[in-house]
Amino acid sequence: MSFCPDRAPSAPSSADAPDAQAIGIFDSGLGGLTVVRAIAARFPGERLLYLGDTARVPYGSRTAATVVRYAERCAAFLQARQVKVVVVACNTVSAVALESLRSHLQVPVLGVIEPGARAALQARRRAGAVGVLATEGTAASGAYPAACRRLDPAAPVVVRAAPLLVPLVEEGWLRGRVPALAVARYLADFEAQRIDTLLLGCTHYPLLRPVIEAHLQAHMPAVRVIDSASAVAAALHTLLPHAGQPEVVGGPRLQICVTDRPAGFARQAEAFLGTAVQSEAVQLVDL
Amino acid sequence: MSFCPDRAPSAPSSADAPDAQAIGIFDSGLGGLTVVRAIAARFPGERLLYLGDTARVPYGSRTAATVVRYAERCAAFLQARQVKVVVVACNTVSAVALESLRSHLQVPVLGVIEPGARAALQARRRAGAVGVLATEGTAASGAYPAACRRLDPAAPVVVRAAPLLVPLVEEGWLRGRVPALAVARYLADFEAQRIDTLLLGCTHYPLLRPVIEAHLQAHMPAVRVIDSASAVAAALHTLLPHAGQPEVVGGPRLQICVTDRPAGFARQAEAFLGTAVQSEAVQLVDL
Repeated sequence: MSFCPDRAPSAPSSADAPDAQAIGIFDSGLGGLTVVRAIAARFPGERLLYLGDTARVPYGSRTAATVVRYAERCAAFLQARQVKVVVVACNTVSAVALESLRSHLQVPVLGVIEPGARAALQARRRAGAVGVLATEGTAASGAYPAACRRLDPAAPVVVRAAPLLVPLVEEGWLRGRVPALAVARYLADFEAQRIDTLLLGCTHYPLLRPVIEAHLQAHMPAVRVIDSASAVAAALHTLLPHAGQPEVVGGPRLQICVTDRPAGFARQAEAFLGTAVQSEAVQLVDL
Repeated sequence: MSFCPDRAPSAPSSADAPDAQAIGIFDSGLGGLTVVRAIAARFPGERLLYLGDTARVPYGSRTAATVVRYAERCAAFLQARQVKVVVVACNTVSAVALESLRSHLQVPVLGVIEPGARAALQARRRAGAVGVLATEGTAASGAYPAACRRLDPAAPVVVRAAPLLVPLVEEGWLRGRVPALAVARYLADFEAQRIDTLLLGCTHYPLLRPVIEAHLQAHMPAVRVIDSASAVAAALHTLLPHAGQPEVVGGPRLQICVTDRPAGFARQAEAFLGTAVQSEAVQLVDL
């Protein structure tokens, strides 16, 4: 996967043509870049426009009304840039603002929760429970159990808030004893609850997947890990039936906009995206 | 110390009289309550009005221009409530917005950095260095070394950012191996730098003081710990020469206003304040 400019200098610019419309993706900050990574891997021919609302991060500790207001501004920004779909790469927004966004926007809106819940239920074996690791806000919203209930009312779902994992990822402590102990503490509850599938219900958590899998291997080796980032990329496939053909004819394939601290964002982005981001490539915007 | 209503029903209300003017204190969130605690202990007769800008927390990761804008709104709110002094119980605001606040307000403004630096330099022994533990934003601002240089240009000062300590405190992990390992990792650099005074340059850190002191006791037993919260309470004494007499004649002694999540704030406040806060006592305000 590469996000380097992929230019065809002799072709006419098609930036405004329908086939050059980007997939719009937004999040409160950096985490959504794990969703960008999964979508880019699955749709090598699509343009991606990412918005990180870094001036208002984190959303997880805000009230629902505040999150809805922020999310509407983010989505309006993407719609004004004529994206063909809005992917909400933020669990908090997906939990509390999806219906409101769908009623306001003219393009399809895809959240991370329903695809994540669906993938977890598909991976689950008969009689096993689904464990969900999430931020405090997502856990408190009850959105994952509700999504699972809609898909399979009989499936047991257990949610555990893990507030320290996002700061650990943002500090870059992805290895060693501190993340191992924190993960062990958060996963301990799941042992008694006999989960057989663990859903990573936050876009930061894929970066801790090796630590999480090491713990599971030692204590609950039968548990399978599902992450929402990959699940949302799979769900996007049904929304974009004609996608998948390389369509990029000019300009960079991934555009990134943030509402604060573009240089810091560029510096931290690589860990989430798997590829370096030049600071000039991150545009500061005002919503 | 108690913040229970301390009423004298037969006395006339003096809420608008000059002698009932409160000490105004603001922070981006909960941390400033450690400053409230220190001020309440030192000024048992004063009314305190606290504002936590929980809708915009954390400030530490914002740009300076954004922090100045937020701080001006907080200070204007307190001034409109006729406080007699504004205490900036936030290291980030103290680092980047103090001069701007002083030029806009009619009442004295006191930050946490200068009092903290002064107390650390007083505690320092000849030839020893001052170590400062701070958030990423405060460390990057260079405000503590600058404040120390103004007071004693020859004193060596070393700052270490410790981004995980605030989330640890907010998660309530104040004991055990995770905070001990995180503290050990952050303090390790100071050993080589031969500090003899450690300044806790964030209002959350007093809650981890036992963990920090245990590590110092084992590895750097000669190091003394200074916290900004106590230092700012001491500095306030020179600003309020007539304070210290019990003046409260009606209503609760501490009023708390927040810009989001009053119930959650009330729940978490006790750890910082040392006394329980009823959720009805926390007022939601819009700035």
